[in-house]
Amino acid sequence: MNFEDIRQQAYAANMQLPKLGLVLFTFGNVSAADRSRGVFAIKPSGVPYDELSPEKMVIVDFEGKIVDGNLRPSSDTLTHAVLYKYWTAIGGIVHTHSTYATAWAQAQHDIPIFGTTHADHCTVDIPCAPPMDDSMIRGNYEFETGFQIMNCFAERELNYKEVEMVLVGNHAPFTWGKDAAKAVYNSAVLETIAQMAMLTKQINPAAPRLKEALITKHFERKHGPDSYYGQ
Amino acid sequence: MNFEDIRQQAYAANMQLPKLGLVLFTFGNVSAADRSRGVFAIKPSGVPYDELSPEKMVIVDFEGKIVDGNLRPSSDTLTHAVLYKYWTAIGGIVHTHSTYATAWAQAQHDIPIFGTTHADHCTVDIPCAPPMDDSMIRGNYEFETGFQIMNCFAERELNYKEVEMVLVGNHAPFTWGKDAAKAVYNSAVLETIAQMAMLTKQINPAAPRLKEALITKHFERKHGPDSYYGQ
Amino acid sequence: MNFEDIRQQAYAANMQLPKLGLVLFTFGNVSAADRSRGVFAIKPSGVPYDELSPEKMVIVDFEGKIVDGNLRPSSDTLTHAVLYKYWTAIGGIVHTHSTYATAWAQAQHDIPIFGTTHADHCTVDIPCAPPMDDSMIRGNYEFETGFQIMNCFAERELNYKEVEMVLVGNHAPFTWGKDAAKAVYNSAVLETIAQMAMLTKQINPAAPRLKEALITKHFERKHGPDSYYGQ
Amino acid sequence: MNFEDIRQQAYAANMQLPKLGLVLFTFGNVSAADRSRGVFAIKPSGVPYDELSPEKMVIVDFEGKIVDGNLRPSSDTLTHAVLYKYWTAIGGIVHTHSTYATAWAQAQHDIPIFGTTHADHCTVDIPCAPPMDDSMIRGNYEFETGFQIMNCFAERELNYKEVEMVLVGNHAPFTWGKDAAKAVYNSAVLETIAQMAMLTKQINPAAPRLKEALITKHFERKHGPDSYYGQ
Repeated sequence: MNFEDIRQQAYAANMQLPKLGLVLFTFGNVSAADRSRGVFAIKPSGVPYDELSPEKMVIVDFEGKIVDGNLRPSSDTLTHAVLYKYWTAIGGIVHTHSTYATAWAQAQHDIPIFGTTHADHCTVDIPCAPPMDDSMIRGNYEFETGFQIMNCFAERELNYKEVEMVLVGNHAPFTWGKDAAKAVYNSAVLETIAQMAMLTKQINPAAPRLKEALITKHFERKHGPDSYYGQ
Repeated sequence: MNFEDIRQQAYAANMQLPKLGLVLFTFGNVSAADRSRGVFAIKPSGVPYDELSPEKMVIVDFEGKIVDGNLRPSSDTLTHAVLYKYWTAIGGIVHTHSTYATAWAQAQHDIPIFGTTHADHCTVDIPCAPPMDDSMIRGNYEFETGFQIMNCFAERELNYKEVEMVLVGNHAPFTWGKDAAKAVYNSAVLETIAQMAMLTKQINPAAPRLKEALITKHFERKHGPDSYYGQ
Repeated sequence: MNFEDIRQQAYAANMQLPKLGLVLFTFGNVSAADRSRGVFAIKPSGVPYDELSPEKMVIVDFEGKIVDGNLRPSSDTLTHAVLYKYWTAIGGIVHTHSTYATAWAQAQHDIPIFGTTHADHCTVDIPCAPPMDDSMIRGNYEFETGFQIMNCFAERELNYKEVEMVLVGNHAPFTWGKDAAKAVYNSAVLETIAQMAMLTKQINPAAPRLKEALITKHFERKHGPDSYYGQ
Repeated sequence: MNFEDIRQQAYAANMQLPKLGLVLFTFGNVSAADRSRGVFAIKPSGVPYDELSPEKMVIVDFEGKIVDGNLRPSSDTLTHAVLYKYWTAIGGIVHTHSTYATAWAQAQHDIPIFGTTHADHCTVDIPCAPPMDDSMIRGNYEFETGFQIMNCFAERELNYKEVEMVLVGNHAPFTWGKDAAKAVYNSAVLETIAQMAMLTKQINPAAPRLKEALITKHFERKHGPDSYYGQ
């Protein structure tokens, strides 16, 4: 089997989505990239998770062209391709319609940074990119979705290496990371943060954002040069 | 066993309801139709899911008359019969009291189309038919429930082939599709849409409906003539 | 083993509580009565569900006196005893702290009858008995809890054979039925009704109560003389 | 293996966290103390629960110095150490980011005592310690977190032997008890109380606190000198 390593990675990462409660039926997809060969492996479109196998993963290049595989790739493939092409440090991407993150996307609100669970993973509010212009929607939709995400990061001067998650307004979340496993981890974290933030607002509509010193402390202890979390 | 194929389909589809978390005890039923013979197989009334078997499914014609089977059919049988009789392209029907969809029905509100998860399956708000007149309730109640659903679609000029789900006000949801498996799929999708819409309103009471270009795009990519979702 | 039949019934019914998601740790208890001998079998106090067995059930009479068993009975035993003594058609009682029903009890609100799921089981709002007077609390508390429930039914002219569930204000729900299995069934139904009613109010704070014709229809089709639900 | 008993206790207690739904990934840790030797066993930092074993637990003294073990201890170790050092009756400590308790911490609200489920375990509102001063955050953060908790208890004149749980504002809950198993029990109870209180406020924003007589009665029947709960 060609591209066995990334097919295996993409397969294993896709299978985590139902296990983590992040997808209903086929509402999600994960890809895993091999930068040395300029390709990624992605879930085939509309195939139920319990019928997946590593060899069913489709190999696509960063222009969105199919390189290997018998099945049609995920309908979101071009969004993955654009992000891989321009954000050159990414090794894995996940798209889901997980319940709470999608509700924030539908509400067209950033997820405010309310606590250390959020700050452990990201120092800013989770950005919600605005819905696209009609011309972009009617054009090459999935391709433009990638640009919508990148434009949102550019306007807000966010670094995709530090903020590994985004909501696309009226749509749903995308997450990424150094590899597919990390991108899946980020999807589960995002869903939890989204639920906690929603509940926080229910309990106290005037809940303040986390203060700067705590944001810095928690992010640094996990990700800074002197981090002391993990082994 | 007579009608083995639709009995098996109805059995398999009914067994999906508890697995998908859509029913408590016996609060739901699925039927599967065979149009060539003008009959459908439906769950027997009040029998727990773990005591079901294909041969226990009851065979009923489109007038609601029992054709084969030893058990009493679901108390909602006449609603199924009416819908099969007049909506001639339907092959399966599901009724549940799934939590979030039922809450919207009890609130007597349509479910607004807030995002692409909804638009992937339906281009309009999920309609909530008004509660019936007292004379209809006191008359042939389950029979009239079918007409209440069809009248709601007629008044709003909705096509049952495009909108495969409805809430009956103060009661609960019904869904349908080309076969029983698709109708069950629609029940699970409806429950997810109902939960997301409720959360969206909690986060942002002024959340706008999805804009037209996105509604069209998402529905077309799954269901249009140039659809590119699935295999 | 003495009283083997009711010990077995009480054991089986108690084991349903964690399975149905109605209890955390030991926060609940079920009893099963044998009216011919004037006794009931009840869960021992504070024993984890996975350490229960039929022979550990304690046999108590309707005055609350222990008749057989080596363990101390549930701390709520006197409430069960009082209800068995005065409500002579009851064969099983359940007490839980299930999440949504307890939230309504804490809110000191009746659960409004918003839909047919509720009407299938009960034709009125689920009553919430007011918290007890301080003198009753400081006196024979669990004994008085039984009277608080019966007084609430007397004042509202409710029939315990038709309304098989109650919230005790600031505390939690009690349910009952012809036997322990039916009482457990009612506990699960109550929890679902409580969740749906809470969500209904979130979606539409002005949601109307179910109209009389639907209340009657749904209750009658399950419980009336011409009922046609079940086998 | 050295310290086999507390390593085993800490291991078993840590494994309860995912089982009880209190942690996502590695977002939590439990420790178990041996006061005769002045040490505690704690989860290693960032190790997934399904890769844990008793021998991986790290042994630390009450100053926070590692005594035995090959892995780095939890990043929250110093908070545990401080609490063990000053609250001399504690035998186990748990830290989680459980969803509802964390939402209350993020809302910076005490959890009001709304019902008997709460009073069975604690006679006061669950305290939410304020977020720390910036100088404490930038200093020895985890060490100061322990003092923040103790200061909160001192100011409110609470006794850590009676109130075995706290929310740290903007962060998450800590619980403790006579041993690690009791501390885990308290974490699950706290999460349930937090969810019920949030729902109570949704149903009735003006819900009153539990009255004094019920608070006393329920706490005393489980914990007073004449308690009659359990065996």
